[in-house]
Amino acid sequence: MFNFNFSAPTEIVFGKDTQHGTGEYVKKHGSKVLLHYGGGSIKKSGLYNDIVNSLNKSGVDFVELGGVVPNPRLSLVHEGIDLCKREAVDFIIAVGGGSVIDSAKAIAVGVNYDGDVWDFFERGIPIESSIGVGVVLTIPAAGSESSSSAVITNEDGLYKRGIGSELIVPRFAIMNPELTFTLPEYQTGCGISDIFAHLMERYFTNTTNVDYSDRLIEASMRTLIYNAPKVFANPNDYDARAEIMWVGTIAHNGLLDCGRGGDWASHNIEHELSGLYDIAHGAGLSIIFPAWMKYVYQNDIGRFVQFAVRVFDVDLAYEDLSAVALEGIKRLEKFYQNIGMPIRLSDADIGDSDFDQLASKATDRGNFGSFASLGKDDVLSILKLAL
Amino acid sequence: MFNFNFSAPTEIVFGKDTQHGTGEYVKKHGSKVLLHYGGGSIKKSGLYNDIVNSLNKSGVDFVELGGVVPNPRLSLVHEGIDLCKREAVDFIIAVGGGSVIDSAKAIAVGVNYDGDVWDFFERGIPIESSIGVGVVLTIPAAGSESSSSAVITNEDGLYKRGIGSELIVPRFAIMNPELTFTLPEYQTGCGISDIFAHLMERYFTNTTNVDYSDRLIEASMRTLIYNAPKVFANPNDYDARAEIMWVGTIAHNGLLDCGRGGDWASHNIEHELSGLYDIAHGAGLSIIFPAWMKYVYQNDIGRFVQFAVRVFDVDLAYEDLSAVALEGIKRLEKFYQNIGMPIRLSDADIGDSDFDQLASKATDRGNFGSFASLGKDDVLSILKLAL
Repeated sequence: MFNFNFSAPTEIVFGKDTQHGTGEYVKKHGSKVLLHYGGGSIKKSGLYNDIVNSLNKSGVDFVELGGVVPNPRLSLVHEGIDLCKREAVDFIIAVGGGSVIDSAKAIAVGVNYDGDVWDFFERGIPIESSIGVGVVLTIPAAGSESSSSAVITNEDGLYKRGIGSELIVPRFAIMNPELTFTLPEYQTGCGISDIFAHLMERYFTNTTNVDYSDRLIEASMRTLIYNAPKVFANPNDYDARAEIMWVGTIAHNGLLDCGRGGDWASHNIEHELSGLYDIAHGAGLSIIFPAWMKYVYQNDIGRFVQFAVRVFDVDLAYEDLSAVALEGIKRLEKFYQNIGMPIRLSDADIGDSDFDQLASKATDRGNFGSFASLGKDDVLSILKLAL
Repeated sequence: MFNFNFSAPTEIVFGKDTQHGTGEYVKKHGSKVLLHYGGGSIKKSGLYNDIVNSLNKSGVDFVELGGVVPNPRLSLVHEGIDLCKREAVDFIIAVGGGSVIDSAKAIAVGVNYDGDVWDFFERGIPIESSIGVGVVLTIPAAGSESSSSAVITNEDGLYKRGIGSELIVPRFAIMNPELTFTLPEYQTGCGISDIFAHLMERYFTNTTNVDYSDRLIEASMRTLIYNAPKVFANPNDYDARAEIMWVGTIAHNGLLDCGRGGDWASHNIEHELSGLYDIAHGAGLSIIFPAWMKYVYQNDIGRFVQFAVRVFDVDLAYEDLSAVALEGIKRLEKFYQNIGMPIRLSDADIGDSDFDQLASKATDRGNFGSFASLGKDDVLSILKLAL
């Protein structure tokens, strides 16, 4: 186990009807506020009205900017920064899923920066200032509601890049599982896949003696496996929706990183995939992860056996540990299919024509991955396994 | 699952050599500091010197007060409050285990209060002000290093009472597992028993649909069961010490309360026991808990079966669920014995002579317990089961 620092300062406000308190939480943190959101779904669902009513009731002075799309775009971030500078905004309330929150975080770090905010993403220069961000979460997936990271896509070249800083951890996150009842099946599946991937990126580590965090991650994965079929059977199952939503937060708030390294190679490859094809992040992950696992499992067969046995209840047959590990991967693929996710590039109508470009972009800043270090040829092999 | 609020703002600084950074963390929070500790063990171990050197190096102006004993006393709290008022102390660094931290928290809430600080404990009046507390942890047990609660014993009548407030959550907790290498076996066992009890108080709930937190608690209990024998075999096993220390924090920082009620009846009964006999808290808990379980398990046999199967790997035989539940309790008792804990009052040379007084004191403010509501007769029955 490594030395580590940990805190989880985001105030989680979890449960039924909690969105009606948004104004009071916003008022604690800002005097002039940007209300940031995506497309029309929060207007159709009535959530937009709930939030606006709550802000008005609390006397919050706000401007608004909608239009965030999945794989959120740098151009809208620029627009948001200009708006915030013009209107002297000092707090952003993000209403939506990970894309809206990440867009809000990117705007927040740009408000007090004189250069182009993309500098932080492309050149990794340290973030020294950010206005505050609060969240009303509508999609359990990215974990951005209490994380220190954000990912933005630059349309100029379709680069998808991330930033990380304690300064962008949201001040509060209002999470009402009822708001997720209306999520389409596909988006529900994508969210669960994203959460599961966050857990696996941390699980597949080279750090030894990480017993407790292993078990916490396994508990998180089993909770998803147990509750996912319930929400597909009944989208209004409050308790199952609540479990998934809560796992989504814990999966990415830093608790499960304590004392261990993560891998993140599959995320890196997927970022290039969804940057180029605009495929949903969760769907890209369910394609890349099994291929990555097949490519690397022999690096530490014990860890993959533990995954198979403890997470997917594979019978432990000591005679053939490879078979146990591969059966674990097979059950993961079955799990993905049960939640409507693709497990091959062909399921998403993607062929091998851009493999070279994908592998080049993924490795343009060098090798990546910590469980196994991957270069361009490795990425090409993984993409071929995903065909 | 209930609605809930959660945050874990304490900055955890975990790992080897971390105590040498104490001064820098203290400096962030206070200008005049009280160094608070227990007996001579931190002087013998060299930790006292490490802390003083670090405080001096960072230029921290401090006064000190040692002498905290297990089941920390109100009289020393009064002494600390007087000292802090006299010296204009604005931050307390507690170096020790739960007793020292709880004593520091009680002093912290008393500094800006004109009446007797015991008012908060006895009359439950709301806490409106506290100076900050930081921690260097030497005993993994109470979880007080990031919790919102504290327990103090009033020598006048030997009442043991608690307070709870977000204002007393420590600002930071420095946790070096190496500092626990020198803990005697008995104290190591008491600590593990205390942590296990914190987990069980939360596990045995009447709240339904708490799948994720159930699994997180089970993961925590299994981590203790797996690592406890390692530290008894080798007290210098860094990784096993680290796992236990980290479970101790998570067990009591609020994460495992999210969306569910706890019971806390066993803690209530134990508080009277250790208030009267000055038995170690962990040892009192290992005596009371099995008796409590035998008394209440039929209230929700399913929960006790789940405990037996998921935590102690009892074979699930549907024909006789009572036998499964009782086997779980038996394995818990065996676990306690393996870590050197008593499981009966007779193991601690306590007879039945004070049962009436214990049961009266425990219920002097009415029934308690939420998994099962207990009155005086119930407490008497549980004490008899513990003989």
